[in-house]
Amino acid sequence: MTLQKTNLSAQNSELYAQLFAQTRLAQHASRLLANASSDSKNAALQQMAIQLLRHESLILEANALDIEQATARGMKQNLLDRLTLTPARLQTIAAGVEAVVALPDPIGVTLASWQLSNGMQMEKRSVPLGVIVMIYEARPNVTVDAASLTIKTGNAVVLRGSSDALRTNRAITKALREALQHSHLPIDAIQLVEFTEHEAVDYLVRMNETVDLVIPRGGAGLIQSVLQKSTVPVIETGVGNCHVYVDSEADPEMATRITLNAKTQRPSVCNSTETLLVHEKIAPDWLPQMLTHLHEHGVELHGCERTRALAPQLAIIPANQDDWATEYLDLKLAVKIVADVEEAIEHITNYGTRHTESIVTRSEETAALFLQRIDATAVYHNASTRLTDGFVYGFGAEIGISTQKLHARGPMGLQALTSYKYIGYGNGQIVQ
Amino acid sequence: MTLQKTNLSAQNSELYAQLFAQTRLAQHASRLLANASSDSKNAALQQMAIQLLRHESLILEANALDIEQATARGMKQNLLDRLTLTPARLQTIAAGVEAVVALPDPIGVTLASWQLSNGMQMEKRSVPLGVIVMIYEARPNVTVDAASLTIKTGNAVVLRGSSDALRTNRAITKALREALQHSHLPIDAIQLVEFTEHEAVDYLVRMNETVDLVIPRGGAGLIQSVLQKSTVPVIETGVGNCHVYVDSEADPEMATRITLNAKTQRPSVCNSTETLLVHEKIAPDWLPQMLTHLHEHGVELHGCERTRALAPQLAIIPANQDDWATEYLDLKLAVKIVADVEEAIEHITNYGTRHTESIVTRSEETAALFLQRIDATAVYHNASTRLTDGFVYGFGAEIGISTQKLHARGPMGLQALTSYKYIGYGNGQIVQ
Repeated sequence: MTLQKTNLSAQNSELYAQLFAQTRLAQHASRLLANASSDSKNAALQQMAIQLLRHESLILEANALDIEQATARGMKQNLLDRLTLTPARLQTIAAGVEAVVALPDPIGVTLASWQLSNGMQMEKRSVPLGVIVMIYEARPNVTVDAASLTIKTGNAVVLRGSSDALRTNRAITKALREALQHSHLPIDAIQLVEFTEHEAVDYLVRMNETVDLVIPRGGAGLIQSVLQKSTVPVIETGVGNCHVYVDSEADPEMATRITLNAKTQRPSVCNSTETLLVHEKIAPDWLPQMLTHLHEHGVELHGCERTRALAPQLAIIPANQDDWATEYLDLKLAVKIVADVEEAIEHITNYGTRHTESIVTRSEETAALFLQRIDATAVYHNASTRLTDGFVYGFGAEIGISTQKLHARGPMGLQALTSYKYIGYGNGQIVQ
Repeated sequence: MTLQKTNLSAQNSELYAQLFAQTRLAQHASRLLANASSDSKNAALQQMAIQLLRHESLILEANALDIEQATARGMKQNLLDRLTLTPARLQTIAAGVEAVVALPDPIGVTLASWQLSNGMQMEKRSVPLGVIVMIYEARPNVTVDAASLTIKTGNAVVLRGSSDALRTNRAITKALREALQHSHLPIDAIQLVEFTEHEAVDYLVRMNETVDLVIPRGGAGLIQSVLQKSTVPVIETGVGNCHVYVDSEADPEMATRITLNAKTQRPSVCNSTETLLVHEKIAPDWLPQMLTHLHEHGVELHGCERTRALAPQLAIIPANQDDWATEYLDLKLAVKIVADVEEAIEHITNYGTRHTESIVTRSEETAALFLQRIDATAVYHNASTRLTDGFVYGFGAEIGISTQKLHARGPMGLQALTSYKYIGYGNGQIVQ
């Protein structure tokens, strides 16, 4: 039955069967974990931090082998950096697990209670989701993050990291599973998928019988691939084509500070700004100096004709449709002069990815229009798009930033990993 | 680009293009509707009720033609009944729309507000989802329900009903769109898909660029088909293999009343009970008479060996694995005697579909164990499984009953058709 469900050929049914068995183990573990007390889950998290440091040498040795192999394969420097663990980084990761202990347990909370007209007392109580599959790239810190947040929320996790980090992930999950064992929680609540076959992902995302949620974390290609194949619910994360709109009534200095921060503070992340929109009234006075600043910060500029005319000395590259639609994730910025806030809203509606959009203006009225009309995860008045972040928001944790509208939108804290059930306390109620 | 996304052959690209254009119109309308006031949305709902009655003769004529054709095609009586409209039924449907007016508007609500450590004031505000595709069977009342609830929540809806109800749906949506026009809301917020090709569904559920949510309503086949093909988020509704567990400490009379209600009050719906589990201590005294009652109510009984031995005169059909797993949706009941609440929980965990599960017992302790351990949308102590319903719950509306854990679980009221966005009011905040 399960094989039929997948609509996939049974050519590698052995792989399928092994993966299915792994998710089944996770499901059994999740049922035990759903009933675990906050104290026992927190004790397990404490142990996870301890075991990570106890296993330091094994983890770092495994990581060194992964790095060696990745280097030989020609992995880019920025990706190598994300793969690399050091004693200091492991300390930070372990401290991150400990920080999760201090967060309130979102499970078993009475979210609402009321009485029905038939006298039945109702309770809406938060519960875990069950089994969560994480599909991600060669970032060992995600392995620990995902495991600690899922255990805190009473879920089991099936980790499918990149094959480039397999040795590191194996060493890390060994430590984490030992921590569960020490704490008398089911070790199968943390599963590492060691199969490097690409089919493994295709199979996992169609195991509706045992998997409750798939979270892909990585580039647009990875996310799209999962979305195309999954029959299990997916939370889409990541792609952000964010804008800063500098209104005619903007405070020029604030606009400069926000634009520089939104573009250059960390250009490789999803909440950095990719296009700057400038009201035509403020452009002649403000934009030339802004463009010079950006140029000095090493930003490659792509501009509309009017923008280019304002700073001919910078040899700004002519912007085309692709520039408006592209998430550069790099020190590149598209710049467009617009007639008014309406044109800015229209541009963002057409090209944005509903992640984070910001307006800089002194006008409360214009700001209110922008904040109401823009359809995005986060809309800001006089602030950098870079602020969209679970830690900045005070959630104390972040599983990712959802760019979809269902279930969880924006920075996802612990609550995003919960569901709820209705409990009815009756005394014989029936339907008439 | 869009055609590539679907991974479908372009053999019917004309159909695809037309459907895409329809969802694009819905998307444009949804953006206007997202900013409509509660008053204007309510005025439109009032108009919808008025126009439905004004169009009565056209709607009933169209319905008569649909019924004639469906009868000729050999449609079953119970399905014909669901397709049939009468003046009285149309009155009820119009009254249902008016009832939605009275419900609070769930859009534009401040769900939370707080200040970040950097001083930025944050607001989490409810917003519409956008464009919702409904895929459903030959039930004209669903056309009106879906349209009224989506307009109330500021969403646009694309309706894909059964071809058996096409004439009726056409007449109804004509009335509803006229109501929008009268109220100066965008008529394209209600779209009827008139293409009867099966491919139309396959295309619609992959239009991620223009569609935010797909809700399939109907049998398991329809829902599974949508789930298998959709890349747009889906809310799974409907399948309910529900249980009543009669504990050793049950009040016998209450257990009888609840069991009869749960099985016989309306056996064709998802929250009716399909399997009765009985504690072995109460079975000899209570079960024989219960089985006789059920038999007298025309219920076909499938029982375990011990159940059959308790009522040999009823010639109970031997139950097999399939009986435990089947949602009969009919006057049929599987009956099993279990050793204790643990076995009942295990049976429900193995065979249930996480819809609604009920325990009948006087023991608070046993009830608490059952309510905590059972993973289902709704768990009841001393009440009929039939109570899982948006109206019974007091939601004032029901789009369906979600059997998944993400976004919305259980009876879905207006809130299930909403998302939220984060709004940040800053004074120059950047990330350090």
